Amino acid sequence: MLDKFKLGACLPTFGSCADRYCLSGYGKGGKTVEEMMSMARQVEDLDGLELVGNWHVNDDNIDYMKKLFADNNLAICMVVPDLWTQEKWGAGSLASTDASVRKDAVREVAKSMDWAAGVGCAYVDVWPGQDGFDYPLQADFTEAWKRLRDGVAECAAYRSDVKVLVEYKLKEPRTHCYVNSAAKTILLLDGIDNTGCLLDIGHSMAAGENVAEAAALLAEFGILDYLHLNDNYRTWDDDMLVASVNIPETLEFVYWLRRLRYSGWLTLDIFPYREEKLPAVRNCFAWMKALLNAVDRTGLDKIGAVIETGDANEAVRLVREMLTGK
Amino acid sequence: MLDKFKLGACLPTFGSCADRYCLSGYGKGGKTVEEMMSMARQVEDLDGLELVGNWHVNDDNIDYMKKLFADNNLAICMVVPDLWTQEKWGAGSLASTDASVRKDAVREVAKSMDWAAGVGCAYVDVWPGQDGFDYPLQADFTEAWKRLRDGVAECAAYRSDVKVLVEYKLKEPRTHCYVNSAAKTILLLDGIDNTGCLLDIGHSMAAGENVAEAAALLAEFGILDYLHLNDNYRTWDDDMLVASVNIPETLEFVYWLRRLRYSGWLTLDIFPYREEKLPAVRNCFAWMKALLNAVDRTGLDKIGAVIETGDANEAVRLVREMLTGK
Amino acid sequence: MLDKFKLGACLPTFGSCADRYCLSGYGKGGKTVEEMMSMARQVEDLDGLELVGNWHVNDDNIDYMKKLFADNNLAICMVVPDLWTQEKWGAGSLASTDASVRKDAVREVAKSMDWAAGVGCAYVDVWPGQDGFDYPLQADFTEAWKRLRDGVAECAAYRSDVKVLVEYKLKEPRTHCYVNSAAKTILLLDGIDNTGCLLDIGHSMAAGENVAEAAALLAEFGILDYLHLNDNYRTWDDDMLVASVNIPETLEFVYWLRRLRYSGWLTLDIFPYREEKLPAVRNCFAWMKALLNAVDRTGLDKIGAVIETGDANEAVRLVREMLTGK
Amino acid sequence: MLDKFKLGACLPTFGSCADRYCLSGYGKGGKTVEEMMSMARQVEDLDGLELVGNWHVNDDNIDYMKKLFADNNLAICMVVPDLWTQEKWGAGSLASTDASVRKDAVREVAKSMDWAAGVGCAYVDVWPGQDGFDYPLQADFTEAWKRLRDGVAECAAYRSDVKVLVEYKLKEPRTHCYVNSAAKTILLLDGIDNTGCLLDIGHSMAAGENVAEAAALLAEFGILDYLHLNDNYRTWDDDMLVASVNIPETLEFVYWLRRLRYSGWLTLDIFPYREEKLPAVRNCFAWMKALLNAVDRTGLDKIGAVIETGDANEAVRLVREMLTGK
Repeated sequence: MLDKFKLGACLPTFGSCADRYCLSGYGKGGKTVEEMMSMARQVEDLDGLELVGNWHVNDDNIDYMKKLFADNNLAICMVVPDLWTQEKWGAGSLASTDASVRKDAVREVAKSMDWAAGVGCAYVDVWPGQDGFDYPLQADFTEAWKRLRDGVAECAAYRSDVKVLVEYKLKEPRTHCYVNSAAKTILLLDGIDNTGCLLDIGHSMAAGENVAEAAALLAEFGILDYLHLNDNYRTWDDDMLVASVNIPETLEFVYWLRRLRYSGWLTLDIFPYREEKLPAVRNCFAWMKALLNAVDRTGLDKIGAVIETGDANEAVRLVREMLTGK
Repeated sequence: MLDKFKLGACLPTFGSCADRYCLSGYGKGGKTVEEMMSMARQVEDLDGLELVGNWHVNDDNIDYMKKLFADNNLAICMVVPDLWTQEKWGAGSLASTDASVRKDAVREVAKSMDWAAGVGCAYVDVWPGQDGFDYPLQADFTEAWKRLRDGVAECAAYRSDVKVLVEYKLKEPRTHCYVNSAAKTILLLDGIDNTGCLLDIGHSMAAGENVAEAAALLAEFGILDYLHLNDNYRTWDDDMLVASVNIPETLEFVYWLRRLRYSGWLTLDIFPYREEKLPAVRNCFAWMKALLNAVDRTGLDKIGAVIETGDANEAVRLVREMLTGK
Repeated sequence: MLDKFKLGACLPTFGSCADRYCLSGYGKGGKTVEEMMSMARQVEDLDGLELVGNWHVNDDNIDYMKKLFADNNLAICMVVPDLWTQEKWGAGSLASTDASVRKDAVREVAKSMDWAAGVGCAYVDVWPGQDGFDYPLQADFTEAWKRLRDGVAECAAYRSDVKVLVEYKLKEPRTHCYVNSAAKTILLLDGIDNTGCLLDIGHSMAAGENVAEAAALLAEFGILDYLHLNDNYRTWDDDMLVASVNIPETLEFVYWLRRLRYSGWLTLDIFPYREEKLPAVRNCFAWMKALLNAVDRTGLDKIGAVIETGDANEAVRLVREMLTGK
Repeated sequence: MLDKFKLGACLPTFGSCADRYCLSGYGKGGKTVEEMMSMARQVEDLDGLELVGNWHVNDDNIDYMKKLFADNNLAICMVVPDLWTQEKWGAGSLASTDASVRKDAVREVAKSMDWAAGVGCAYVDVWPGQDGFDYPLQADFTEAWKRLRDGVAECAAYRSDVKVLVEYKLKEPRTHCYVNSAAKTILLLDGIDNTGCLLDIGHSMAAGENVAEAAALLAEFGILDYLHLNDNYRTWDDDMLVASVNIPETLEFVYWLRRLRYSGWLTLDIFPYREEKLPAVRNCFAWMKALLNAVDRTGLDKIGAVIETGDANEAVRLVREMLTGK
């Protein structure tokens, strides 16, 4: 726990990270769920872990996983339906032009919702990363949009005790993903009950958004439900350690979380390809604590007063003071 | 006229273009409206010109301008309220934290609406380019959004015979503009009558959008009202000649205009800093004609059939065939 | 053969392409070298294939591979030392801070040179993609540069009948690669005999270069030795089909190849993740032919005359005329 | 003075900043040199100011300026030849295709060298911002490169007591500038005596470089002569306040300045469009001091030891500790 927030991480953070060149991964691969959890337990303050459907939780191990997490005093904060690791989703999942693929995708989400319910998790994270296009004249935007809306609606209606969160991203694995911004996510979910948004800092930054602004907009529409923390160099989802590149905007983001009274999960979605996993996770939480302390020490009123002026000099000075005390 | 479309240009296209280094402009500056119009008349097929409020049209010259354009057989396709050329808008116009500036901004738009009505023009182009922020902790996103919504609503209610179009842009002159994507524009205008969207190709591309997808989304929500044509290298609003950099996406855009049955203005918003103005305008229209001919020659059905497959190979082959015949 | 150029492809183009999400690949994986070659033979005009050291050619199969290629009337245009697919290179190869890793890297290149010599191939492609850094304060730039220079020099001196080409790239798999531009490659290789540059269109574009300018600069310094063809959206090495996004710059590039009298390999380095491989390869060569025909039909003199004017209007008009005849 | 460094600023920083929309500038314009200097004097620690040739210093006021600065106890740290504010340079200066323009450009630099010598300034800053191109097929790269080399050589030979520094930039005012990276600048100046490089942080970042790496490379080749400080969001030369966006890389840069034993000018090149000028300048120097203190307090050895490990976790932790003490 970090004050009002719950701290989470994706289970594979403790495994091995691969990329398209080093497909076998940069660290020791092949860790079991138990081994990864054993590492996770060593992180002070960690409250829960995200699991990927099929890979970590499935029809055969629901009770086992529930007990395993209970025994370790950790929550399962998210079940992520596997709509992106198999070749069959390559040309899209919920927005596929193939009706049987769309049906499969909805079923996959439904299964994850069952698994989530079974292990006491409130959310599934629908990331339609394969739903998009790569080349000009390859996509029927109008039809794709309808299919996405229909698919999400069907998932959301499947059962009401697990909320369907949609995670947006500008690109990757497609050169263009359909659900690519906070505003578009709001439009996508408009009028569909039992849905919300998962905001990933890095996705937001790489989409050209200011992430605090994205959070405020989502909160305005009542769907700031869940957060993924990480960082990048703005043009790609580098999935780096929190605040390792962009400190002022991460600080601003933390301020807005307080102001918007966000009190949900702060879950790491990092890919520490070449890094030791435990120090990487601790580093991220240490930065979050440092920034949260800076915000709380300074006070929302004082920060709000500077924002009210709109004076860039005051803003830059305040950031420096909050970080360095000078 | 280009088939169903009307062809327009911004009046200053025929003047002199300046940047922050060469403030006096790269060409011969100081041209009168009459001189610029005299050049514009030499462009075959040109149907109309955009004017900037105060600079080109104002309380003192409405009748004169109306007659001048009628005599020259040109329409005034747009009046652009001057919310961005004066120091007083530097910290924002409709979203300013200063109530008196906001009031001024609404009044400025209202004046432009009167001028538009006076010269027989159906639209004003509200481009809130100064409404945004530059630094972290400088902006109150929640309040700014409300102010923008209120301001646009007030403008739109001023008179119903001139439609208020909002033009979005990711950045410049601010490092972050609030109204920065098609989706966010839809949210902004939701529930506000007498409003619509002005889609600028280059703004869309520099915002990371596929511009055809942006057009389809705006059309889905009924606000694809007006277009600005140009091109760029994707990271900045370079305001270059149409299709000079990105041919396949411009071709795809033209296909979608046909498919979405868009039949409004195609207005150039280019900054030919170092180029002769007449050939620049003609070049742009020649590219639009070439692309439109390619689409019409190929036929919507045939193109649609390729899109339906979602096959990138077919898409790339089709683009090549449409352009080169091979 | 395409006039004076030899046409090549990377062997894995005919296999399966994976990314960090779909590690098992989007197509049918597990193809043998013979199966991939069998597909390659179906591409008209193909002259040769690139092989990756260890994976496709190694101590045990030199004679077999030589015969296999001879029987299929294809050349081995490149052997690529495997400095990037194994975990051991994760923190760098030639520039590693670990002397034993550096030694291994040089040995790996030397082995590839032996294999190249054995199969009658003139080049090895040293791509130091893992040599770089991800985070601030992680790299010793001065020492890394020396190590890179020393490593390349050691490789180049190993045997003189196989030339060591260095392929630059701005980023990926590291967020920053040391050898990231044409100019830096020239500096790196300055004074080291038996070396040259492999210019990859997509790497150049994603590095912010104009690729024709990069080619001209490399030619000026005598090291424009080999080319990789592909395309992307400028911010990432998307490895897309040739000219599928950026037609004018690819056309300009083809003109400069003629003008610089380049007469080497034009080898595809594409990742057709979701596409059928044979049509993808044919599509790329068809675009190259279309552009080359356009250049030859127009003539170097006429194009050169337009360039000489420096007139953007003439340049845009010429591109349109060369592509569409209008 | 900031320890071993001299602190400078561009004189116009104290004037008014304009952009292409608000050509008359966002602040009160029309300040005299004396008025701007009067403001500058209020900045503690300021050691000198940059002047633009013609605008601030010219044949008629050399003695006056020399005395004015002496009376105010400020140095003239740079004279910038005016190769970019006039329409005549629009199609290029030193690399123009027009021999008479090239001759004028060399003469302009020579005049600035005379003025520099006259006022006791050691450098001129040749920024060939207009030397580049905007469109494909517009530039003769080979000839442009030769013209640039010849032009710089001619300038450098004009007089040996004023050093000719070249400032590189990826783009703006052209969409592509020829001299666009540290490595290319090294190639450009190779073999030309009396030349060096002016490294601008923001130019480097917007060019995709890590700025500390650029500094190290320039130092390796002996031409890290002068620095411009500012910050941006990586895709454009936003000319923002120092460390207002990118703190870790600015910190890394400061470490490398110490390590490379740089002891020259740290001159602000910021465009505080909407900001009060005095607090903006003070803010920048305050950040520089904070970062320099952090480096000196931590010690080069300790930082170097972390770098030596190449361990990202250590690097991130060290940055946090240096900034926040935690």
